[in-house]
Amino acid sequence: MRDDLAYEPLTPKTLPERLKNLDSITSLIGKEAQEWRVTEVGDGNLNLVFVVEGKSATIIVKQALPYVRVVGDSWPLSLKRAFFEHETLSRQAKRDPGSVPQIYYFDKEQAIIAMEMLSPHVILRKKLIAGEYVNGLGKTLGHFCARTAFRGSDLSLPTNEKKKDTALFQGNVELMAISENLVFTDPYFEAEMNHHTQGLEPVVKKLRSDISLKTDAQKILQKFASNTETLLHGDLHSGSVMCTDTETKIIDPEFGFYGPMGFDIGMLISNFLMAYFSQPGHRTENTLEKYQDWILSVIDEIYSAFINEFSNLWHNERQGILFPKSLFEDQGHSSEAALYGVLEQIWSDALGVCGIEMHRRILSLAHNADFEEISDTHVRSKLEARTLMMGRQLILERNQIKDVEAIQMLARKYNSEKHL
Amino acid sequence: MRDDLAYEPLTPKTLPERLKNLDSITSLIGKEAQEWRVTEVGDGNLNLVFVVEGKSATIIVKQALPYVRVVGDSWPLSLKRAFFEHETLSRQAKRDPGSVPQIYYFDKEQAIIAMEMLSPHVILRKKLIAGEYVNGLGKTLGHFCARTAFRGSDLSLPTNEKKKDTALFQGNVELMAISENLVFTDPYFEAEMNHHTQGLEPVVKKLRSDISLKTDAQKILQKFASNTETLLHGDLHSGSVMCTDTETKIIDPEFGFYGPMGFDIGMLISNFLMAYFSQPGHRTENTLEKYQDWILSVIDEIYSAFINEFSNLWHNERQGILFPKSLFEDQGHSSEAALYGVLEQIWSDALGVCGIEMHRRILSLAHNADFEEISDTHVRSKLEARTLMMGRQLILERNQIKDVEAIQMLARKYNSEKHL
Repeated sequence: MRDDLAYEPLTPKTLPERLKNLDSITSLIGKEAQEWRVTEVGDGNLNLVFVVEGKSATIIVKQALPYVRVVGDSWPLSLKRAFFEHETLSRQAKRDPGSVPQIYYFDKEQAIIAMEMLSPHVILRKKLIAGEYVNGLGKTLGHFCARTAFRGSDLSLPTNEKKKDTALFQGNVELMAISENLVFTDPYFEAEMNHHTQGLEPVVKKLRSDISLKTDAQKILQKFASNTETLLHGDLHSGSVMCTDTETKIIDPEFGFYGPMGFDIGMLISNFLMAYFSQPGHRTENTLEKYQDWILSVIDEIYSAFINEFSNLWHNERQGILFPKSLFEDQGHSSEAALYGVLEQIWSDALGVCGIEMHRRILSLAHNADFEEISDTHVRSKLEARTLMMGRQLILERNQIKDVEAIQMLARKYNSEKHL
Repeated sequence: MRDDLAYEPLTPKTLPERLKNLDSITSLIGKEAQEWRVTEVGDGNLNLVFVVEGKSATIIVKQALPYVRVVGDSWPLSLKRAFFEHETLSRQAKRDPGSVPQIYYFDKEQAIIAMEMLSPHVILRKKLIAGEYVNGLGKTLGHFCARTAFRGSDLSLPTNEKKKDTALFQGNVELMAISENLVFTDPYFEAEMNHHTQGLEPVVKKLRSDISLKTDAQKILQKFASNTETLLHGDLHSGSVMCTDTETKIIDPEFGFYGPMGFDIGMLISNFLMAYFSQPGHRTENTLEKYQDWILSVIDEIYSAFINEFSNLWHNERQGILFPKSLFEDQGHSSEAALYGVLEQIWSDALGVCGIEMHRRILSLAHNADFEEISDTHVRSKLEARTLMMGRQLILERNQIKDVEAIQMLARKYNSEKHL
């Protein structure tokens, strides 16, 4: 890419001309740029995404737009997010090798990342709506959350490296501000960009008049905004996961930020719970129960894999300033109680985020296809009401709900209840 | 100062020549540099401090050394700390006007800050050892802690400004590392630089074999290292406070860092408690009780002033992203419960830091004159033992001890007990 070129959005037409001289790309897909087949496939909220098919291979070219795509240029948004996506991706690749697409090329000024085409992978959310199974899904996701949480924290990194990186990521302020507003605050009052399914009003009113709930949501926001335990994906929902029947990859970490270790796993579990509650809108009786059971079993897999891997890293890679071996093992003292305490805090933070995500996806700006694709609003609102009410309990009882079994039980309970 | 000059420590002899062309200084103390009287008075652990007396006024010139003064050049330490001291001082001056010395001049490369000479102020610790009273002491300190905590946090600052500043202060990594090691970890095992009073061994052993205590100390370290709620002084003990009989100023914020809102007030209360427990080594029976009572009353004053002022700012200056009025007052919903929750968390964090400071000042590298000046080691160790045991209870019960009265009662109880 020519360095002297100011930022300009790519189009399927201009892309070959603009990328044809990059060795890192042509060495993969071939030099014959005129033969590249370019298709724009972005269906997210923010970016351009091109599939570029050359003679010998296919790659993905992702480019940030200087505004929020789903809203338009009335909502400007810094191109820096491509930089933070690239920075996060490279750290994730190091901390959990194979979990994210390979990066071939990055251009900061043009906000372009060229990366591995995941094929025949499909966005997990689509599979969950279609009722498809993925082997090893929970294990891969749980390991990813544990490895990135642990290896990006003061349990592992040298403190000067950790602080330098924390400082760097404070610059992702615009994307953090989106979460601060849309995720944590907007759901709990009649904010301008909110929308919700018709008929849901009685439950919405109940939540928005619950002062304890709003207070707890703000406490959880306080942690989001001023806790820098580890580098997180920041937007780990089922639209940020791509799968085949047996392989799982994590994409799109442009919301990468330093925050509480429980954040990613909490948001992830939340999106599985939303998939669970939305199933009656997508399945018929004969497959419904089995598929819902599978979703709950994936949540258990995520949690178990997380606990196992985090514990494993605790015992084998604890080299940071926190809970040093000099204080425990070297003194002949067990650090198991300390590990338990750290996991307990992660779990409580995760449950809080989980509940909030269940609220914001139904009450704030950005909704989930899981519910949106249920065209019968009567059915949809009924399912959303269950989700909202369970979310409320998760937030308020995040320090009491002890494990994933309790989550499964709660999900089954709300799934059988009428809240509208 | 000439920009082309590489860093060089000042001496009383070179100082006039090197500062004589600075208008900001000569306009205050006069141009006749050959008549300036320069005395080096630094008695802290880290820096050079000169009193520079000119015809018309006297000022303080503080310069960082590229190593830890108390240890020597075997322990190098970044000059950047002068920059962070200057940055913290200017924010404190804005957030609590009149609480800190006025700055006249700053030279980043030379690590020099020229500032107001506080006279006839004396270091508070010396007054506490001498049994002197200061009117309004607790109120000034409580207000300082509340105003800097609140106005430097996401309750008040625009989030982009807060994140930018958080990023900047991550650079104070070397001074944070000193706290991370010497304050939070070293006291709890036989670290190389530790020392403690002869005879204290049974209590030291008790603390260092208490796994719950070590675990909790590390949890509190975790918050120190990865919580960025507000910009703190970072070293707010009675050696960082200067007083006349009626005026109180706060100095030396080179440990300035973003951390938990309860950090400064916790360390401060800790140093008053150490002054309290050390009194039997300095007073005779006839003045002892009255002076100890006064110290406890100052702790109460600090706490009350903090709560009052923080609540006042909560109601009148809450403009940040946290607990926004749009969610509470604008909906006709009270935010009192939310305020109570925030204060409760601050208090619990403060108690944890308070207990740890009581440990590290007796067991780690840097001790307090309050105890060190008691030459009878038998008496000293007895008083230190009480301090250590109360510190332990504060750490372990930081979520249960509800208010300052409980602290006062505990102090009186330990003050009457024999732990050696």
